[in-house]
Amino acid sequence: MAGYFTEEGSAEAVNARMDENIDPRLAEVMACLVRHLHAFAKETQLTQAEWEYGIDFLTRTGGICSGERQEFILLSDTLGFSMLVDAINNRRPPGATENTVLGPFHVAGAPIRQMGDGISLDGKGESCLYEGRVVDLDGRPIAGARIDVWSDNADGFYDVQQPDIQPRWNNRGVFVTGPDGAYRFIGIKPVSYPIPDDGPVGQMLGHLGRHPYRPAHMHYIVTAEGHQGLVTHTFVGDDPYLGSDTVFGVKKTLIAPFERVAGGPAAWRSPFDFVLVPD
Amino acid sequence: MAGYFTEEGSAEAVNARMDENIDPRLAEVMACLVRHLHAFAKETQLTQAEWEYGIDFLTRTGGICSGERQEFILLSDTLGFSMLVDAINNRRPPGATENTVLGPFHVAGAPIRQMGDGISLDGKGESCLYEGRVVDLDGRPIAGARIDVWSDNADGFYDVQQPDIQPRWNNRGVFVTGPDGAYRFIGIKPVSYPIPDDGPVGQMLGHLGRHPYRPAHMHYIVTAEGHQGLVTHTFVGDDPYLGSDTVFGVKKTLIAPFERVAGGPAAWRSPFDFVLVPD
Repeated sequence: MAGYFTEEGSAEAVNARMDENIDPRLAEVMACLVRHLHAFAKETQLTQAEWEYGIDFLTRTGGICSGERQEFILLSDTLGFSMLVDAINNRRPPGATENTVLGPFHVAGAPIRQMGDGISLDGKGESCLYEGRVVDLDGRPIAGARIDVWSDNADGFYDVQQPDIQPRWNNRGVFVTGPDGAYRFIGIKPVSYPIPDDGPVGQMLGHLGRHPYRPAHMHYIVTAEGHQGLVTHTFVGDDPYLGSDTVFGVKKTLIAPFERVAGGPAAWRSPFDFVLVPD
Repeated sequence: MAGYFTEEGSAEAVNARMDENIDPRLAEVMACLVRHLHAFAKETQLTQAEWEYGIDFLTRTGGICSGERQEFILLSDTLGFSMLVDAINNRRPPGATENTVLGPFHVAGAPIRQMGDGISLDGKGESCLYEGRVVDLDGRPIAGARIDVWSDNADGFYDVQQPDIQPRWNNRGVFVTGPDGAYRFIGIKPVSYPIPDDGPVGQMLGHLGRHPYRPAHMHYIVTAEGHQGLVTHTFVGDDPYLGSDTVFGVKKTLIAPFERVAGGPAAWRSPFDFVLVPD
């Protein structure tokens, strides 16, 4: 017969209840979760009223979720948990381009465009030429790399957030590299924007004295045969929120130059090379 | 400017983002929560797929919550978290009756009954005489103590779970002690029952190889002027689930004798004294 619950042995009592024939990875993950949950309550000497607040917070977070709104992912993002899981699962050698979070606004199936094409379809914002190469760790160009890009528009919204206002596939496109590994397209200089902050997560940020903004960034998924997929952003180097991204997505190596250009095809130019690692 | 996110310093990066002028207790609780959440991901090397499963589990848990169903409390209960918070907030000296979880089935406003009255209104189950005294730590009787009792019926359901089948206030009542501190009422010998297990928490228990049962118990809230309130159960000593209560509510000192009685007012007798501590 298992031991009865005691305050001291609380986590052990719970974990001893798992059957020994369950999936070993599930047992490992659950035992660790229970240990940390119980340690949290013990270290904080959590009060009954705080427990009730937590239950109510989770219930409200669940209540606002819908097909269009994922408040638990926002919660994970704003507590740095999404970035941590991303980091754990995407460790790369020095020199390789670092990963960051996918975010909720990627849409599969964007149109494949020609190098040099524009992706901004609503005519808003300051134009920016994005160019560089997809290379391996030795600097050799990768041909046939697929670059899926997306950003917000000049008002700070992705096309899918404003289906009645923005043209479909606005600020989205897929580019495929040739033998030189080079890419080149014209988008806009993206702008910073708040994550949806009218729900429980926004209230939490308010109580913590945190703003809900993400610094301006261009999203990329870069894939190539024989190489690990890369999910990342490049960040606009002069953004005021660079040091306080509400989802902690910024890595120093992902801050890209944005240079004003006179007389070019666009008002700005942002060069960046993507360095992939072998599978 | 705050440091950028790194895998090593992930929790520190998140906690450094809190404003220094927020409520200090909130800052303490959140910092501890973030540290343990991040340590959990690091110790388990949580995969992206496991993170997605967790997000989906929380979303489904939120989705089943309603005015009548609180799946997050069930989750807290089945992970021993509710009992831990109860234990932290209700430490008592040796000899005092221990607390256990309130559970979701208490209803305020039950009828006040006379000592010796019956509380089972549906005529089902084996009758049981509950009797004893409410005393202080020195064994002195406490007059005017209010004893609010409730249990399931012989089919394992509380009246509020079957409003169309059970009489209102079935197996519920409030008793007030006289100068001798004694109480005495006739209920049924309660039966073990499963917590609602048709949702995400029930699925979790299945994956963990755990059953959803609570051992048979009688609920009590005992309050008296000048004394700390007591929220507890007494458990039926021969119940097969005593060692595996799915919400970890059993404490050894709360297991009560249930004795068969020939020729008395009830088929069983369960004596138990409640020992209160001063405010």
